[in-house]
Amino acid sequence: MTSVAYGTKEDLPFLIRPENTARYEDGEVLILDRRVYPFDVKFVRCKTYRDVAQAIKDMVTQSGGPPFCAGYGMAQAAREAVSRSHEGILEELERAAGYLINTRPTNNSIVLMTEKMLEVGRKALWEGQDVEDALVKAVDAEFEARHKRGLAIGENGASLLIDGDSILNHCWAESGIVYTAYVARQQGMRLKAYCSETRPYLQGARLTADALCDMGIETTVITDNMPAYLMSKGMISKFFTGADRVTMDGSVINKIGTLQIAICAHHFGIPFFAFCDGPDPKAPTAADVIIEERDPSEVLKCLGQRTATPKAKGYYPAFDVTPPEFVSAIVTDRGVFTPYSMADYRQVGSGRSK
Amino acid sequence: MTSVAYGTKEDLPFLIRPENTARYEDGEVLILDRRVYPFDVKFVRCKTYRDVAQAIKDMVTQSGGPPFCAGYGMAQAAREAVSRSHEGILEELERAAGYLINTRPTNNSIVLMTEKMLEVGRKALWEGQDVEDALVKAVDAEFEARHKRGLAIGENGASLLIDGDSILNHCWAESGIVYTAYVARQQGMRLKAYCSETRPYLQGARLTADALCDMGIETTVITDNMPAYLMSKGMISKFFTGADRVTMDGSVINKIGTLQIAICAHHFGIPFFAFCDGPDPKAPTAADVIIEERDPSEVLKCLGQRTATPKAKGYYPAFDVTPPEFVSAIVTDRGVFTPYSMADYRQVGSGRSK
Repeated sequence: MTSVAYGTKEDLPFLIRPENTARYEDGEVLILDRRVYPFDVKFVRCKTYRDVAQAIKDMVTQSGGPPFCAGYGMAQAAREAVSRSHEGILEELERAAGYLINTRPTNNSIVLMTEKMLEVGRKALWEGQDVEDALVKAVDAEFEARHKRGLAIGENGASLLIDGDSILNHCWAESGIVYTAYVARQQGMRLKAYCSETRPYLQGARLTADALCDMGIETTVITDNMPAYLMSKGMISKFFTGADRVTMDGSVINKIGTLQIAICAHHFGIPFFAFCDGPDPKAPTAADVIIEERDPSEVLKCLGQRTATPKAKGYYPAFDVTPPEFVSAIVTDRGVFTPYSMADYRQVGSGRSK
Repeated sequence: MTSVAYGTKEDLPFLIRPENTARYEDGEVLILDRRVYPFDVKFVRCKTYRDVAQAIKDMVTQSGGPPFCAGYGMAQAAREAVSRSHEGILEELERAAGYLINTRPTNNSIVLMTEKMLEVGRKALWEGQDVEDALVKAVDAEFEARHKRGLAIGENGASLLIDGDSILNHCWAESGIVYTAYVARQQGMRLKAYCSETRPYLQGARLTADALCDMGIETTVITDNMPAYLMSKGMISKFFTGADRVTMDGSVINKIGTLQIAICAHHFGIPFFAFCDGPDPKAPTAADVIIEERDPSEVLKCLGQRTATPKAKGYYPAFDVTPPEFVSAIVTDRGVFTPYSMADYRQVGSGRSK
């Protein structure tokens, strides 16, 4: 991939740097294996878009990672079909898009990315450009756009903070707490952070805590059964999460566990801020979003080691729905919105940029 | 220890049988290592009461296990001091009691047991009996009494259930859900159970789920971030936990995580029943109970394997306090009480037994 300047390593944590999400190298997509980070820093090497789809299914990357991997997967499809006719190339791109979308149903960012890449592919063919090259450049540009959006979200997030805040975060919060902490730190604010570990994949303990420590924030990991206790002791002033999807009626669909922390935050009078790049206009309500249920055996293990009696079965809903009455505000790149006026996001957007 | 008849193995689950909590064998106390059960079924062999105290500190056994181990530890102290004067023996018993109490501060059952055993020791000396033998027999009798109390609690618990109930249980619930399920099953009720895994020690996933499966109950393990989601889907009809301590004002002190599930149960209109052998008259309010904070590094690991980034620190409060407004009822061997009338427990008791 094209090298992008994001300042020194000290500026952005390891996990937020684009090359540590995914890289495109001579037809191969290299994806940081977030399942084992930080205990092992390794990249899964995908030779085809089918490998990329499998890696997304297998949770090699998650949250904000999959769309970029899917974008590079589209470039692989173009490379595979390079000797075919224009129709043949487009067919292959469409096949790849279907393949990549059919991996994880709850977050729709893969759908949006593959739609964009199909558009880029069509344009490149029309203009006689190298399709693979155009797609790779387009994904690189998406990384740059993500960084800009992240900074905008971070500025909006930081506007909600005061010096000395103690933030609880659940799961991995790429565009939320990390960029907010990044901006807040530049503004000289001192923050404390608590990360709920987020079983079964431990994204809070392994990823968010790692990124916050990279930025010099005093970070404490707790198990998923501790948030209410910390709230009852006055140890938490704000609750932050990302959002895999925000519906037009202000429901936040995010990693399993968000709902119960939000209910407790509401009880203790602690605001809950959910971070995203805007609501999904195709999802009027939470009923329009499929909640992914993953392999039940995943909750019976931790990092590959058995954790439950072999006599019992497991159950693994990967996300939950927090209704708007438990959401204090939705923080986006275009401003901070009440969950009851998500339509405003598009209006603000159309007034500011195309 | 004396062999006690509890019916066949099919009647009581493995973990509830006294010999699988602790055994006294020729001066040694053998304690089932609940940290590794059911992956490894092994007993930690304690040669002295100091070893027993260390095992309790190290969580070899927990919940209802420690008082029985402490009782046998007192017998070891008597054995050690057998050649001394009566005063010397009593001194050693008192020293042992102090040692055993000074292990875990939140549950006061060790205090109660060692007080009883001091009484037994004094009486045996006075009557010229073998003190070690008298203490071992007294602990065995306590196991029998536990079983009878368990059956009484179970009958009271079962009175709250209806056929087809789906019960969520957090952590290990020896005297609560296991005996309730035992009685309910004898009454022909069909139950479903969900066990939250209870990080960091996984007592729900390893112990409760195991015991419920032993009784033929359809049991599903979930991670600690899932209870509210299951409640939101109508999958839970009742929430059960044990209680390490119930204060006279009806606060339930139990394994970390109980509070947040209780808050969510209240939100979803699901009753929360806490099970115990009665309130602690020495604890008027929750402020009178010390909440144990354990080694923070324990939340950064799972079954010995690192789970969190090495850059972050941990925090490990082992218990939390659920105030009475989130407790539907306290289920005891003497009846089902509202948390607002815990003093009634003693009155009922004094009317029924000495």
